[in-house]
Amino acid sequence: MGCLSLEMDFELSAMTPRSLAMTPRSLARQRLFPNVENKKQKVEQSGAGPRKNLQLEVMEPGLKNDGPSLDTILVNYLDTLTQRVNFHLGYPVNICYDHYATLAPLLQFHLNNCGDPFLQNTVDFHSKDFEVAVLDWFAQLWEIEKDQYWGYVTNGGTEGNLHGILLGRELLPEGILYASKDSHYSVFKAARMYRMDSETINTSVNGEMDYSDLRAKLLQNKNRPAIINVTIGIYLLQLLSFFFFSFMDLISHLTTSPLMFFLTIGTTFKGAIDDVDVILETLKDCGYSQDRFYIHCDAALCGLMTPFINNMISFKKPIGSVTISGHKFLGCPMPCGVQITRKSYINNLSTNVEYIASVDATISGSRNGLTPIFLWYSLSAKGQIGMQKDVKRCLDNAKYLKDRLQKEGISVMLNELSIIVVLERPRDHEFVRRWQLSCVKDMAHVIVMPGITREMLDNFISELVQQRKQCYQDGKAEAPCVADDIGAQNCACSYHKIDYISS
Amino acid sequence: MGCLSLEMDFELSAMTPRSLAMTPRSLARQRLFPNVENKKQKVEQSGAGPRKNLQLEVMEPGLKNDGPSLDTILVNYLDTLTQRVNFHLGYPVNICYDHYATLAPLLQFHLNNCGDPFLQNTVDFHSKDFEVAVLDWFAQLWEIEKDQYWGYVTNGGTEGNLHGILLGRELLPEGILYASKDSHYSVFKAARMYRMDSETINTSVNGEMDYSDLRAKLLQNKNRPAIINVTIGIYLLQLLSFFFFSFMDLISHLTTSPLMFFLTIGTTFKGAIDDVDVILETLKDCGYSQDRFYIHCDAALCGLMTPFINNMISFKKPIGSVTISGHKFLGCPMPCGVQITRKSYINNLSTNVEYIASVDATISGSRNGLTPIFLWYSLSAKGQIGMQKDVKRCLDNAKYLKDRLQKEGISVMLNELSIIVVLERPRDHEFVRRWQLSCVKDMAHVIVMPGITREMLDNFISELVQQRKQCYQDGKAEAPCVADDIGAQNCACSYHKIDYISS
Repeated sequence: MGCLSLEMDFELSAMTPRSLAMTPRSLARQRLFPNVENKKQKVEQSGAGPRKNLQLEVMEPGLKNDGPSLDTILVNYLDTLTQRVNFHLGYPVNICYDHYATLAPLLQFHLNNCGDPFLQNTVDFHSKDFEVAVLDWFAQLWEIEKDQYWGYVTNGGTEGNLHGILLGRELLPEGILYASKDSHYSVFKAARMYRMDSETINTSVNGEMDYSDLRAKLLQNKNRPAIINVTIGIYLLQLLSFFFFSFMDLISHLTTSPLMFFLTIGTTFKGAIDDVDVILETLKDCGYSQDRFYIHCDAALCGLMTPFINNMISFKKPIGSVTISGHKFLGCPMPCGVQITRKSYINNLSTNVEYIASVDATISGSRNGLTPIFLWYSLSAKGQIGMQKDVKRCLDNAKYLKDRLQKEGISVMLNELSIIVVLERPRDHEFVRRWQLSCVKDMAHVIVMPGITREMLDNFISELVQQRKQCYQDGKAEAPCVADDIGAQNCACSYHKIDYISS
Repeated sequence: MGCLSLEMDFELSAMTPRSLAMTPRSLARQRLFPNVENKKQKVEQSGAGPRKNLQLEVMEPGLKNDGPSLDTILVNYLDTLTQRVNFHLGYPVNICYDHYATLAPLLQFHLNNCGDPFLQNTVDFHSKDFEVAVLDWFAQLWEIEKDQYWGYVTNGGTEGNLHGILLGRELLPEGILYASKDSHYSVFKAARMYRMDSETINTSVNGEMDYSDLRAKLLQNKNRPAIINVTIGIYLLQLLSFFFFSFMDLISHLTTSPLMFFLTIGTTFKGAIDDVDVILETLKDCGYSQDRFYIHCDAALCGLMTPFINNMISFKKPIGSVTISGHKFLGCPMPCGVQITRKSYINNLSTNVEYIASVDATISGSRNGLTPIFLWYSLSAKGQIGMQKDVKRCLDNAKYLKDRLQKEGISVMLNELSIIVVLERPRDHEFVRRWQLSCVKDMAHVIVMPGITREMLDNFISELVQQRKQCYQDGKAEAPCVADDIGAQNCACSYHKIDYISS
């Protein structure tokens, strides 16, 4: 497309996502900002700190303004982000895409995929054709025929969960929602929004649903249908906010009960995957026929990885809906997701609309028309082979990080087929903030996404080792015990050291 | 910012939004697509038809592909949109912004404003500082102190309505939702999602709430609190899909009741504004104290116009929340909106979270980080003075269109302080599709947004006059009677012609 060939886009990004100096990205940037000097290299060497709140306000042109101009604010903001991308370890976002220069001209239009993607528009400013192409691809991936499925590109995983659980409730109005305590918090939010009864299921140490607890609760409520949220290695972004602002900030913003806070902590942090087959078997054993349960799969992060590892998600099984996030493993400049369900369920939803004065079965109505094009472009440029390569590289890199940390005597856990490396929480807040790590209790995690290189991991490990030396050298403090959270065999604290795998 | 000065951005777009030949937009496009010939002028002269479904699929690189390449598909798509922008009359979207070249570099990052905009992130890839600046601006516009309000940038008007009505329900769990039959359909969708009882209020011919009907229904349900949706000239995008696909398409997609279909038709199409003051008075008269009602204002389209005309929306009145769409009057490449409410209500919501395992009071959780920057940039570059100019130009142009149509003897209605010109539905489907008009029953409407020039309106009128001549010249058919929908005084059909204003 003019200045960038697709091969260059993706090959370069996969090989050297962080070296912008001579890539098409910086060339394109030069085109867009011909007068802006590229200061990146210098700042990068000096080690960029976390970005600070810009304390902005909307300006009024014509009024006297002593502060920086709009242009200056934007250029500085972009520069900071460019530096900070090299320290982006803790969040499940693939920032390894250079196709912005190719797709940027789309920003000159307002693209709105309002309502159902399969219904025609009378206005031309939509991308429903791109959207349907993306949906077809996912339908094929999850083994459901074109004429049997319905779906749409959502604004993110939460919208998918809200939609899937609503579908379940509309099909089984008396149904109880079952979800493990490690489910994404939007699942419990949905229960409250939709005025549904819910049961929280325990989890094992690795974060997977405790199937015996599920069985016990299913048997307790046998007289009512079951709507089950299955977590396919989701990951929670929000919870991290809580650990780095002051207590006073918290109090001033919320008058909330401690209960809520602690509940947040129990979110899936470890990349565990609930086993759909075991859940289906449990339902059968407990006497639930197929018309008395609905399964929604929240596959936010792993939905795009599992098909290249096993066929966990398949509509050949009696599942109701699957949700993934588009900005996570695949990557997209803004949050988005894909929701796929059975067409017959949507028809049911549409038939029962006494109040919904529309055939629009989406949650959000007016929908982002850019994200389907980004997804279509990424999928088409990578293809299944490219995705498979990404999965392999990420799994390898996760294993590499885990092994290196183990060698250094640092508590660490990596679930099978997971890219989430859970480690002891670094003691130094500045270090955590610098590497944008996500922490819960005494754990931190690195999510080894496609954009993360061995070089970044090496830098991280060497800084971590150095930081631990500083913290623990005088013997006054010692590394935390995380045996309860990630298992004794993964804990390298002074007490469990003796059982530590690498020792 | 390098290649574009802000003044040029906005002045040029305001003056000649459709003439791309020598504007910064086309210059930037040339930079991004140096090898693509600019074919626009030629095609424009020949009169571009509606765009066709591209029948796309996701490609697999490496596999043999006889079709066009990714690049070709994208270039053609962009070219079609560029042509079709000149015929964009029926939808409330401001497509008059050329700042895409300035903001395009943001696309190289994933920006995610997860959760509460006022809570800090540990990850740097967000734009919460821009978001809070935008929220502060709206808070000031709607007269609520910084420390008294809470809000967030949503994915669009629907999310704002879902949020506002949820707030109302959480504050008044037994409350009944009251909304006029011309409310946006998402309001009734919310009632169903949230398992709320609701009452539909009649409207007058101009689309405004029938306050005597509201009074009667409030008195009927005096024992339960009231949650009232107030429509500030909203506009429905979705409904238009229904009129141009075949009946068989409809049947195959939906097994739906006719009731639903007809309810859709009664949506606000005319730009009417419910009077908050009269509603407050009615509540008082009916004996509802302030702790027994909640008012949500759906100001999707007009929320950014009314402040420059009157102070209809103000938190000095006992209203609970206000929602606007950011992509409508202001303009943004993707749907977005702003939701503002009272901080105390959010605290209440957060306190009651037994199930919501988070302090995140937004609906969508992970949120688009680009839209706040677009809104901040547009507001800062235009300022209140620029917005005021836009409002004046749009009102003038709407009046111009109405007068011209009246002069031509075409049925037409324009509410006071509205930019929605309702006219008789053109008989020729091709014409309707070409001008991307939105139609309901025998009405069509033009929404005179900031991007619409007199030149576009003149072209439209002259084509419409010509098209009517062809349709009605042989006397076999005649223009429809729309007296029931827009009033006899606005109807120019053969029966009402005698009372027609201009005659």
